Amino acid sequence: MRTPHARPAVPTPSVAFSTSDPLSRVAVDLLGGDGAPEVVADAVLALIDEPGIDLVLVGPTVVATELLTARGIDPARVRILDADSVVPMDADPLALLRASDSYSVSVAAAAVRDGLADAWVTVGHTGAAVAAAAFTLGRVPGMTRPALAVVLPATHGPVVLVDAGAVLDATADTLLHFALAGWCYAHALDIADPVIGLLSIGSEPGKGDVLRSVTDSLLRQILPGFGMRYAGPVEGHDVSRGDRAQVIVTDGFTGNVLLKGIEGAVTWTAARLGESYGDPAPARRLVTQTATGDFAGGMLLGVNGVTVIGHGAGSAAEVAACIRLAARVAEHDIVAETQSTFSALVSTP
Amino acid sequence: MRTPHARPAVPTPSVAFSTSDPLSRVAVDLLGGDGAPEVVADAVLALIDEPGIDLVLVGPTVVATELLTARGIDPARVRILDADSVVPMDADPLALLRASDSYSVSVAAAAVRDGLADAWVTVGHTGAAVAAAAFTLGRVPGMTRPALAVVLPATHGPVVLVDAGAVLDATADTLLHFALAGWCYAHALDIADPVIGLLSIGSEPGKGDVLRSVTDSLLRQILPGFGMRYAGPVEGHDVSRGDRAQVIVTDGFTGNVLLKGIEGAVTWTAARLGESYGDPAPARRLVTQTATGDFAGGMLLGVNGVTVIGHGAGSAAEVAACIRLAARVAEHDIVAETQSTFSALVSTP
Repeated sequence: MRTPHARPAVPTPSVAFSTSDPLSRVAVDLLGGDGAPEVVADAVLALIDEPGIDLVLVGPTVVATELLTARGIDPARVRILDADSVVPMDADPLALLRASDSYSVSVAAAAVRDGLADAWVTVGHTGAAVAAAAFTLGRVPGMTRPALAVVLPATHGPVVLVDAGAVLDATADTLLHFALAGWCYAHALDIADPVIGLLSIGSEPGKGDVLRSVTDSLLRQILPGFGMRYAGPVEGHDVSRGDRAQVIVTDGFTGNVLLKGIEGAVTWTAARLGESYGDPAPARRLVTQTATGDFAGGMLLGVNGVTVIGHGAGSAAEVAACIRLAARVAEHDIVAETQSTFSALVSTP
Repeated sequence: MRTPHARPAVPTPSVAFSTSDPLSRVAVDLLGGDGAPEVVADAVLALIDEPGIDLVLVGPTVVATELLTARGIDPARVRILDADSVVPMDADPLALLRASDSYSVSVAAAAVRDGLADAWVTVGHTGAAVAAAAFTLGRVPGMTRPALAVVLPATHGPVVLVDAGAVLDATADTLLHFALAGWCYAHALDIADPVIGLLSIGSEPGKGDVLRSVTDSLLRQILPGFGMRYAGPVEGHDVSRGDRAQVIVTDGFTGNVLLKGIEGAVTWTAARLGESYGDPAPARRLVTQTATGDFAGGMLLGVNGVTVIGHGAGSAAEVAACIRLAARVAEHDIVAETQSTFSALVSTP
């Protein structure tokens, strides 16, 4: 199942897009998410005329056709890949995905594997998405655990936070892998010469708990050999500043808590300031803009294909943001760059 | 050294305060902090006429007298306790504090131990402050590790976050202790019947890493016996909401990262909205208000005396906020309540 990622020369759909941008074909799981399939169909409607994105909808053909037609979209404009079942939120995804490859996440991931799409997106069960990506696309050789990377807005430009919740029991090696894969992701996002930082509770070398202290030494030793800059330990506030580091590495427990903590703090501050200024509209707009930017989707690093996982409770605008992110990253050869980075790591004596 | 806390009937200073509030005597470390002693003296100036607070300044008598006089304060209005040295920021505080009890943090903590003050405050070296409090005041029997608790503003009222950075290698027992001590602190802050939550990455029982899963079971088992309500696992955004829990418990690594992450996110959001509204003043005011509220000071839980530790880089307004917090908490018998809670825990079969 570990087929290396490549973008084969399959014929593109006959639908013409008025764009000079490269066209990214994005397979979208119609069935995942709290508001599926309607919210996903609304996201398709929002993007149907957007240049650069060619949508592939993954779900029951009849349902997909009906949803498109109901939104005034000619079903011939969207390729549909039939998949009739969804991994339930309370299920153990591993058992289900091993037993059948007809789940929407498996079919969507297989579309990338088989060259029918350049990226895939789901806002369903996160564990099912990670498992489907790992099973169907295969892992990047040398990267022990896939990680979720999220792009956060910051004062000095965007910051990639890895991991946002996939790996709760990280070791120093895992965090090194997150640093390397996170750097490749930042590169694919056109962040020039990104600096890597290790999330800790102070900025002096070795600062933090035992895991951070060991990881700090390892990163200092390994990253320069890859031509990657390392800032050393950085702190929680550096994530919203973005000047000391643009790739911030941590375990999935800390990363998930911090990510949700930042979301909560943005919402609290916006609500307070909406009151202070006597006009909540601009404050609400900032919260919506933040939620519907690159922030909406987590990029799964360490699998052989561009995989974006969004919030289950996301709005159509948030699902659309995930699809836009997937399309943009698929224009870059992030998977090949990640593979070549880890190939170099594995051959490092 | 483990003398239980009590408020002996020592004569109060002859200076009269026009207040009907109970008077809290707060010993303030003049020498700790990046801007010491000037910034601390400015904080004294800000509070000198505030009812309910009786300041005790801890530092070199000559320096203290000069600083007060230069600010137009009659030195007779402030009790001065002589202490001529400060623990340097790059020092190992344990060795220094074991060798001498003339450091300003030791003298300030001893003022509480000896009944000359009801609380003490420092914005100097955090490790030195924690060590001085533990050595001089003694630990609450049964609470294995002192923890730093910070009060954060939230939509539905304040939230106590424990630990904000004192204990990086917490166990389930440590987190149970933080929950009990955090509850006592919330109680002293007049948060009625506070609900305890365990910071994790989801809200279902047992959610999170191994530490959280074990701790969740322990809290479910123990907290009801103390008449304390437990919400189960809560998430990062719950800290800025404050509806699910008002005491949120975590290890010091995660807590410190989250706290600084929230600070950074509040600053980022305020800056963005200041631009959107075309008037940065109200946005800046919110950032300042947040920094100079109860948020300014960490309460050290688990020692036999009210100890507040603030940011080393804090402004005079932030130092004053720490002193106000200490005075307010000293009005309650938080130490006796914590001692009695842990006494009950120790005797639990």
